[in-house]
Amino acid sequence: MPRPTAPALPGFVAVIPAGGAGTRLWPLSRASSPKFLHDLTGSGRTLLQATWDRLVPLAGEHGVVVVTGVAHEEAVRAQLPQLPAGNVLAEPSPRESMAAIGLAAAVLVRRDPEVVLGSFAADHVIGDTQLFEATVAQAVAVAREGSVVTVGITPTHPSTGFGYIRAAGPLRVQGAPDALAVAEFVEKPDEATATGYLAAGGYLWNASMFVVRAATLLQHLRTQLPALHDGLVEIAAGLEAGDHEVMARVWPGLTRIAIDHAIAEPVAAAGGVAVVPGTFAWDDVGDWSSLLDLLPSSEGLPVVLGQADAVLAQGSTGLVVPASGRLVAVLGIADVVVVDTPDAVLVTTRGHAQRVKGVVDALKAQGRSELV
Amino acid sequence: MPRPTAPALPGFVAVIPAGGAGTRLWPLSRASSPKFLHDLTGSGRTLLQATWDRLVPLAGEHGVVVVTGVAHEEAVRAQLPQLPAGNVLAEPSPRESMAAIGLAAAVLVRRDPEVVLGSFAADHVIGDTQLFEATVAQAVAVAREGSVVTVGITPTHPSTGFGYIRAAGPLRVQGAPDALAVAEFVEKPDEATATGYLAAGGYLWNASMFVVRAATLLQHLRTQLPALHDGLVEIAAGLEAGDHEVMARVWPGLTRIAIDHAIAEPVAAAGGVAVVPGTFAWDDVGDWSSLLDLLPSSEGLPVVLGQADAVLAQGSTGLVVPASGRLVAVLGIADVVVVDTPDAVLVTTRGHAQRVKGVVDALKAQGRSELV
Repeated sequence: MPRPTAPALPGFVAVIPAGGAGTRLWPLSRASSPKFLHDLTGSGRTLLQATWDRLVPLAGEHGVVVVTGVAHEEAVRAQLPQLPAGNVLAEPSPRESMAAIGLAAAVLVRRDPEVVLGSFAADHVIGDTQLFEATVAQAVAVAREGSVVTVGITPTHPSTGFGYIRAAGPLRVQGAPDALAVAEFVEKPDEATATGYLAAGGYLWNASMFVVRAATLLQHLRTQLPALHDGLVEIAAGLEAGDHEVMARVWPGLTRIAIDHAIAEPVAAAGGVAVVPGTFAWDDVGDWSSLLDLLPSSEGLPVVLGQADAVLAQGSTGLVVPASGRLVAVLGIADVVVVDTPDAVLVTTRGHAQRVKGVVDALKAQGRSELV
Repeated sequence: MPRPTAPALPGFVAVIPAGGAGTRLWPLSRASSPKFLHDLTGSGRTLLQATWDRLVPLAGEHGVVVVTGVAHEEAVRAQLPQLPAGNVLAEPSPRESMAAIGLAAAVLVRRDPEVVLGSFAADHVIGDTQLFEATVAQAVAVAREGSVVTVGITPTHPSTGFGYIRAAGPLRVQGAPDALAVAEFVEKPDEATATGYLAAGGYLWNASMFVVRAATLLQHLRTQLPALHDGLVEIAAGLEAGDHEVMARVWPGLTRIAIDHAIAEPVAAAGGVAVVPGTFAWDDVGDWSSLLDLLPSSEGLPVVLGQADAVLAQGSTGLVVPASGRLVAVLGIADVVVVDTPDAVLVTTRGHAQRVKGVVDALKAQGRSELV
């Protein structure tokens, strides 16, 4: 058995919040089988596995923790057989990112009071692994100094689909030459505003990547949301003590809030947040159209995500996802999107990719929960 | 058990050639399960069953004969349980319409030398049953006088998809006030020519409906194609004598030719063909677009052929055929055509309906015969 390579960043633990249904990627992504469990890039690895592959060199196999819903615990363990048994934290119900990451922090700080954790969503796509690693290494260096650190993506176009981080001056931290102070987090802009951000410079995409000492995170949480802090600390202590009831008892009462609102925004306002710009390719794969942008184009024919011989296309472009074993024949439609699964097939175009959520909402309204 | 109503036209036998794959209605229509075996109108009856329903009042249950391929004999019997066992003629291989109808004539003339047969395709759609019955009654009256009679459809638009019949003067036959002589049969015209036909008047669509004394038909066949005639007569005699090998022995050598070319055109040139104009609604349902014209429209939404709750449509029009039990979600495509079957789904638009044959051809070229 090969001995695992030593992690590049000792004392660093990678936390992967694996939640979110990826509704706009229906019908492949479902509540029962969300986006992160699927191979959306045709790489042979699911988004969760690719996230693992990216983080293990930095944190080691024992340095990766996944926080996911109880419904997905088994699938997560099956997809990541090297993940240590104690490194899955299963949420009984969704409580958003602050509870997920905060729980990881509360558990990890008991194992190592100095631990730096980095949180990276299970369902994003990242290119340029070396650039990613170097950027995270800088973020860890800054986090050791006591900042809440985010990795902000250098924008390549005026996206209206992401929030932005407005950077301030350089921080001059040892080992983090690119680190900047954060002036503020701003919500998803309209197109004119986004174009203005790009022209002005100093704006980065908020990719929901946070790197911070666990102890620092918990300290901020105690200040901002003491009840949530205390609940998470109680759960972490109970889990360590073998109290199998603690999760069921405490979790349902926890505040639902995103880490951006709970920590990043108020702490940024107080000058406690740093950002390391990342120039690697990144996308949150929000819908079929943005996925198509990530895939190698297929000249004059639809891109096929899956078995190429399951698609017969004539006079068409766009994206076809054959995921039912059946033949998908597409004839004479430009920018078509066809996603074929065993119990549902979606037919639309790139221009309507954002509206797929409306289909899912309609199915929910019809009580057809088996399909969503 | 209710006694069958007496047939309206004694001495008349209806022949239903049930062949043709309906390639442009793929993937619902297949070589293994052709168009005529499907309910394409949402009536609850397949095209074959609807053809039977239309002919039984004229010919009686014992007066209907189906000529089909051996591969479909079982399905035909299953769909038409009232069809007498001896009234299915199973072709070992396709030999086009002259052999099919000629075989029926050769068999039927042995049962009744004076029999008048009428041939009506298994996969056409006809409205206005009473008008149809009255038209066929006139055709039978003319046929008894010794003509080859066709029913021609009064055109409603300058179709380029059908052949035309140019009528000459009235025939003044007792019981057939509308019958006309036929000047000639003309091939499918281009649009300008078709428009000219409509403006000129006197042109009818060739719906491949032929009514003729069996003895008359065989006599013409003996003149035009003696080898084919003799082969069919030999088969009919053999079948009657219980010679189970005769079909396998003789059929493969028969000439492949359509009845139009074999009989209708040359006999028309000699003045021996009559036409009775039919003003009932008729269509040969050549492709998904023409099928859509036959179905009741669905305001601002796609027409659904099948279970309405198997389709979820938003911002779309066209036709959806959910035939796999799965949900079909269609979002934001006008005039879309989606046909969903257990092993293949077709996604196209009305404007490309004619090109579906190209998909089938490509599948054949790939050797994927299980799908076509």
